[in-house]
Amino acid sequence: MLDKVLRMGLLFDFYGALLTEKQQQCLEMHYLSDLSLSEIAEQFGVSRQAVHDILRRAEQTLDEYERKLGLVDRYRRQQAALQQIHELIQQLPFNLKQLPDIAKVSDEIGKLMDASFKEV
Amino acid sequence: MLDKVLRMGLLFDFYGALLTEKQQQCLEMHYLSDLSLSEIAEQFGVSRQAVHDILRRAEQTLDEYERKLGLVDRYRRQQAALQQIHELIQQLPFNLKQLPDIAKVSDEIGKLMDASFKEV
Repeated sequence: MLDKVLRMGLLFDFYGALLTEKQQQCLEMHYLSDLSLSEIAEQFGVSRQAVHDILRRAEQTLDEYERKLGLVDRYRRQQAALQQIHELIQQLPFNLKQLPDIAKVSDEIGKLMDASFKEV
Repeated sequence: MLDKVLRMGLLFDFYGALLTEKQQQCLEMHYLSDLSLSEIAEQFGVSRQAVHDILRRAEQTLDEYERKLGLVDRYRRQQAALQQIHELIQQLPFNLKQLPDIAKVSDEIGKLMDASFKEV
């Protein structure tokens, strides 16, 4: 379940703006605010099944965009490469790592990794 | 003009799969193979004006995806940050730069910058 939440979070981050407003609201309420289907249904004054259908359709649409464009996959591979570079620096001997020039490189790479992709 | 070609190249790389096949073909012929509108028109057996309209519509669609998603802009900012890190390493004193560990970090960052985003 956590994997699905993380995956939907990334897909939503990348492609959410292409969904309808109602789809975006339902996904945000379910995955970001962690509301149950029944709670969302109550807020919208619709049935639990209706919310289920909206979510399923929205998830399918996000999956379809990723299948066509693969931009989340690219991003994850790029982050993995950055992670590897970061580890290379972490493994440098201490006397090197503490040099201000090297520390600055390490710091900048860390920022690039930590930043949500949106904020980069 | 070059700016437009580069910009369209990036937009096409990111969102091209969402265009129709005909739109993709026309954009590739015009921007990647550098064919004129008349040459493309001849190949498809349509008027020059028809090709012009297909291209304009395709470009508008790509612009619209970027306006909604901003993923090309994110990518360019991330590349700029990588470029800055690369320069920090280039500016290290020679005796540091030639250390195998540092050279490897520099090399990996260079690969991440050089790789077309697709290949990362």
